Amino acid sequence: MSPVAPAALSLHQALAEVGAEIDRRFDALLAVPDDARARLYQAMRHAAIGGGKRLRPLLVFAVADMFRVNRDCTAAVATAIECIHVYSLIHDDLPAMDDDDTRRGKPTVHKAFDEATAILAGDSLHALAFEILGEATAHADPLVRAELVVELARASGAAGMAGGQMMDLVAETTRFDLATVTRLQALKTGALIAFSVEAGAILGHAGPEARTSLRGYARDIGLAFQIADDILDVEGDEETVGKKLGKDGDAGKETFLSLLGLYRAREQARMLVEQSIAHLHAFGPEADLLREIARFVLERDR
Amino acid sequence: MSPVAPAALSLHQALAEVGAEIDRRFDALLAVPDDARARLYQAMRHAAIGGGKRLRPLLVFAVADMFRVNRDCTAAVATAIECIHVYSLIHDDLPAMDDDDTRRGKPTVHKAFDEATAILAGDSLHALAFEILGEATAHADPLVRAELVVELARASGAAGMAGGQMMDLVAETTRFDLATVTRLQALKTGALIAFSVEAGAILGHAGPEARTSLRGYARDIGLAFQIADDILDVEGDEETVGKKLGKDGDAGKETFLSLLGLYRAREQARMLVEQSIAHLHAFGPEADLLREIARFVLERDR
Repeated sequence: MSPVAPAALSLHQALAEVGAEIDRRFDALLAVPDDARARLYQAMRHAAIGGGKRLRPLLVFAVADMFRVNRDCTAAVATAIECIHVYSLIHDDLPAMDDDDTRRGKPTVHKAFDEATAILAGDSLHALAFEILGEATAHADPLVRAELVVELARASGAAGMAGGQMMDLVAETTRFDLATVTRLQALKTGALIAFSVEAGAILGHAGPEARTSLRGYARDIGLAFQIADDILDVEGDEETVGKKLGKDGDAGKETFLSLLGLYRAREQARMLVEQSIAHLHAFGPEADLLREIARFVLERDR
Repeated sequence: MSPVAPAALSLHQALAEVGAEIDRRFDALLAVPDDARARLYQAMRHAAIGGGKRLRPLLVFAVADMFRVNRDCTAAVATAIECIHVYSLIHDDLPAMDDDDTRRGKPTVHKAFDEATAILAGDSLHALAFEILGEATAHADPLVRAELVVELARASGAAGMAGGQMMDLVAETTRFDLATVTRLQALKTGALIAFSVEAGAILGHAGPEARTSLRGYARDIGLAFQIADDILDVEGDEETVGKKLGKDGDAGKETFLSLLGLYRAREQARMLVEQSIAHLHAFGPEADLLREIARFVLERDR
């Protein structure tokens, strides 16, 4: 990984570079110990290495690079956020939750290993996120570190991802309206996407105006991402997406698609992407990668 | 709660005061929201409020009070540690793990609610620990905060509690020797007890000699605590202990009791408690509460 941000990195290059960097870091962090915990580390590696779009780490890099943050520090914070994302996937896939057999084209952790190991692998990645974050920012500005720790914890807990997943379980038996589905998704996927952008801004000591713009950007792409996900769940190719599709409809859950219909859902997502790019108007070409990511959120096929 | 440490607090008073303080904080932290997440918060309250010995928070207070740490900050750090403890109990009780129906004299979370809610309640308390820790120490010395976050994450993850629980699951099918059982328990229960003592020392800016003494104390009471637990599992009263007993023997797991026999296990625990108190020789009466806690670890009936 280059210590300084390249002048103009295409989305394709950036995705590949960030993906390789995250894999390299997980490989080093998750060296398998020669004791009875070996299975736990193998399960963590199975879930964490070699898969996923690494969208959240890419967002951290894209924002932090705008402010010329030290890339080693950026990479550590990006890895911490990906730990939280991977842990949430492992737990959401459990039989008691969404009961999924496939994820990122591989068997889910409880299928490849067992349920107890999957629960512990998720818990361990959850803890690892804060270990990495605490270490990475040990010599950062004290308020920067406190803010990162508190905000990541909020994005992960009952006021964020875990709260959103709880609402998602309730959605199987309760008919949610559009406002409630929007709130659900703002917690379940929006909170960590928003934090990925926010983390880059915090590390970069971005001023209040830049932070407001970036927050608007993050909120809009988070929602667009989820609408695109709902569309992929109906229209996507299972092999490309790498997991079982059509589950929300089968479970009778309301989604953006069921509430808006395909045409309006697509329009809404397109509008959100345009709006997210509009939030970046005060930035120059240094925000081009963010603009490309916004378009990618809509056009991706997995 | 008194803002300054009382001169001489008996163990009985200290347990009651710390228990009330932790309950009061959880009650405020876990206000039930008026939305689909209500069930999640109710589950967190069920597990966190009104139960347990609060041994770990008591250890934080006992050490921090020796160094006259601000008690509000101490209470927050103690609550963060108890969050981690409670989360680990919820997950360890799950059907895929130890499959327990009763905890602290009440139904376990997955029995009172359901498995998905129990997984999410544990995850949410895990995140809450770091949110509290980050907030409580936002204005503390930067290295103090970084150390607290990193050490708590280590105590919770694959190199601590979660790793110990993994070894414990392996113990059902593999015959462990005394060294391996000691290592297992050092991770599973020892790491968080050690961190409780360490946190008080970190907050108190204890010097290297004091920290070495306190580490020795924590290691010894942690091990004594576990041996006492193994003895209680065989000799205790289910109603008093508040959970099902005799499970390790039924599962064919090696414990300190099965490896040492009752007589030697008792002797070993007694020796460890004496040794833990000996580590405190350089401290005066300000460490009397720690000495009382060491004796309590051995004599408790729950």
